[in-house]
Amino acid sequence: MKAEIIAVGSELLLGQITNTNAAFISARLAEAGIDVYYHTVVGDNPNRLDEAITIAQNRADLIIFSGGLGPTKDDLTKETIAKKLGVILESDHDALVSIEAYFKRTGRTMTDNNKKQALVLSGSTVLVNNHGMAPGMAIKKNGKCYILLPGPPHEMQPMFEKEAIPYLLGTSGNKEVIVSRVLKFYGIGEAELEYRVQSILDGQTNPTVAPLASPDSVILRLTAKAESVEAAHKLITPVESEIRSIVGQFIYGIDEDTLSSKAAELLLGNGLTIAAAESLTAGLFMAELADEPGISSSLKGGVVVYDEHAKKEQLDIPGSLLDEYGVVSSECAAALARSVKRKFSSDIGIGLTGAAGPDPHDGKPVGTVWIGIAYKDDEVKTYKLDLSGSRNANRKRAARFALYYVIKELKSRLTEN
Amino acid sequence: MKAEIIAVGSELLLGQITNTNAAFISARLAEAGIDVYYHTVVGDNPNRLDEAITIAQNRADLIIFSGGLGPTKDDLTKETIAKKLGVILESDHDALVSIEAYFKRTGRTMTDNNKKQALVLSGSTVLVNNHGMAPGMAIKKNGKCYILLPGPPHEMQPMFEKEAIPYLLGTSGNKEVIVSRVLKFYGIGEAELEYRVQSILDGQTNPTVAPLASPDSVILRLTAKAESVEAAHKLITPVESEIRSIVGQFIYGIDEDTLSSKAAELLLGNGLTIAAAESLTAGLFMAELADEPGISSSLKGGVVVYDEHAKKEQLDIPGSLLDEYGVVSSECAAALARSVKRKFSSDIGIGLTGAAGPDPHDGKPVGTVWIGIAYKDDEVKTYKLDLSGSRNANRKRAARFALYYVIKELKSRLTEN
Repeated sequence: MKAEIIAVGSELLLGQITNTNAAFISARLAEAGIDVYYHTVVGDNPNRLDEAITIAQNRADLIIFSGGLGPTKDDLTKETIAKKLGVILESDHDALVSIEAYFKRTGRTMTDNNKKQALVLSGSTVLVNNHGMAPGMAIKKNGKCYILLPGPPHEMQPMFEKEAIPYLLGTSGNKEVIVSRVLKFYGIGEAELEYRVQSILDGQTNPTVAPLASPDSVILRLTAKAESVEAAHKLITPVESEIRSIVGQFIYGIDEDTLSSKAAELLLGNGLTIAAAESLTAGLFMAELADEPGISSSLKGGVVVYDEHAKKEQLDIPGSLLDEYGVVSSECAAALARSVKRKFSSDIGIGLTGAAGPDPHDGKPVGTVWIGIAYKDDEVKTYKLDLSGSRNANRKRAARFALYYVIKELKSRLTEN
Repeated sequence: MKAEIIAVGSELLLGQITNTNAAFISARLAEAGIDVYYHTVVGDNPNRLDEAITIAQNRADLIIFSGGLGPTKDDLTKETIAKKLGVILESDHDALVSIEAYFKRTGRTMTDNNKKQALVLSGSTVLVNNHGMAPGMAIKKNGKCYILLPGPPHEMQPMFEKEAIPYLLGTSGNKEVIVSRVLKFYGIGEAELEYRVQSILDGQTNPTVAPLASPDSVILRLTAKAESVEAAHKLITPVESEIRSIVGQFIYGIDEDTLSSKAAELLLGNGLTIAAAESLTAGLFMAELADEPGISSSLKGGVVVYDEHAKKEQLDIPGSLLDEYGVVSSECAAALARSVKRKFSSDIGIGLTGAAGPDPHDGKPVGTVWIGIAYKDDEVKTYKLDLSGSRNANRKRAARFALYYVIKELKSRLTEN
């Protein structure tokens, strides 16, 4: 099946927004084994949209539209497609009820324009919109399949995953479900991860195993097709175990986990408190951890000691230590961690010091970072990073590595106990 | 002139990257008065690219390509266009010299593939690439104009602005230059800004004045066309003055300024030091200020006092004050600012406290934030925010408002002196 994605909206052609919908839909179709051959963007103009549909009909079997389902006079996608396919628009009862309920709930007045949003292509399968008013549609005509989706990504994305993908798998003849499991890695590069699990990447077809790199982390997405969710999980589990046996030490979480959500979960779940002394990161570690609601039970606070005086005065780091080892050193990171833990009476203390750039700091090259973790009464552990990014990339990565080491530390201790 | 943008790259059709190039090019063409009618994305496949060019030739006068100029066998954009237009590829001397210099500088070995990058369409104007090896090209043939750009945004963007736009303005017959001036606002919403300067937005054609909103700030872009840069500035200056006379108090900077760069510039330029006590923002204010290189001369550090104990113990905030006014109060923000200024012996102290969400805090509704600014020996000023975003949007906006108030404070004081 060859697919084309047509995004409708003049704001895309003016460069006011970026066509993220095409990327999202493409990635999900790739997982479903459907090839995308073209993306097209066309403005809110029925003649040009009509011409774009003609072109797409000549080169694709599946045409997916996003945008132009709204209530205003600019929104002409379904009217244009209805005319093109020779089907009428009719009001969908469930969609109308849902729109009326929305207006009742918010106390606003419903206009005829809003009723227009409940119109769907006659004979289409309605795709439910749980995050907005415009329903989606899927319809087959003359051997081609057409899917209409709303433009706002927060409406389109769940509709595409929960309604359109199952429809596509159903109409493609196989009654399969698709289940994905995302394994999230930190502290290992994409190239090294691929190298270590190459035989699994090469050999696996169900589930498929696909690496994806973002600027500072890597994921593996395992995607299985099966007759049921349970059967799909049975396919995924042994492959996930095999991957964990090889590179499990770099996995910090799964699916929707982030470094901060996982660290917060482990801290809060075990009643542990934390404080941090940050130099090069200047608050990034604490700020990222504080992204998580409820973290105030665990995050006591901390100190930003950006200059050397502050380290001495605020955290009593001895001048002799700084003279002997330097500010960017294992010894300084350990002293920062120990001192902030004591000062805030927390279970865990974190110390972060390094040379973010653009210039070397304390005689250490740009990208040198030391992270200290003090845990209760134990010895302090320290970790060294040699980062190679820009000043701010180095600062962000240092803060995230600290979250990663917190997760590793807690996981190993909780396993031991 | 009708334009179409064709992005070439299979990674776009797999959803691995988003087509930001089309949005960037579209926005710049809109400023230059050139209408974009279509965006197309096609994979690294010469037959399908050829067909996409045929379609574009039937509906556009200007066809802009991005991607596929690299050294690998997948990169076929210029070969396909050369064949289509019936022109040969020839080596460009300057491009070859620049590629050879790059390899010499980095000590790497140049291959024949790299020499391929110096090939350009015979008869084309070469667009210089100052950030990579692949030169761009512009060529007119049979009444159509073709522009070829590299795919990586950091190479494409400066080439498009500095080379392609002047070429387009030159070939369009008018020898005009386009000059933009961006005014950056904080603390005012898009709707209110538009309302206040409506007569200028409506009445101005040269310069045009266009508002653009990002998630938490607004800009006005003034764009003038004239015979020279000087003449364009003469058109912009009086309109900028008029805007400043109406909403100047919300302007924190121009062009490439950010809140943190502007705050850093004012602090460093006036030899002033700063420290912060952060509650709800948990380090975001300091971390954002520390984005700026060289800030260590000014940012002494600060304290994250996330829980009430920490506020009392670390910054000696009296329990009686917290009992009487609460943690989320003008009095607490002022005390935090004053205390951290004293503790770090800085010229300026900032205090941030509030209810980020998801739940109310200290009896105050979500989104209530107090910011205190202590300046030398003067009285502390406090500001109240009523934010309406998510927990993390509120935290980010609170930190940015604090930067904005620092800028306002310093600007007013420096004007006074």
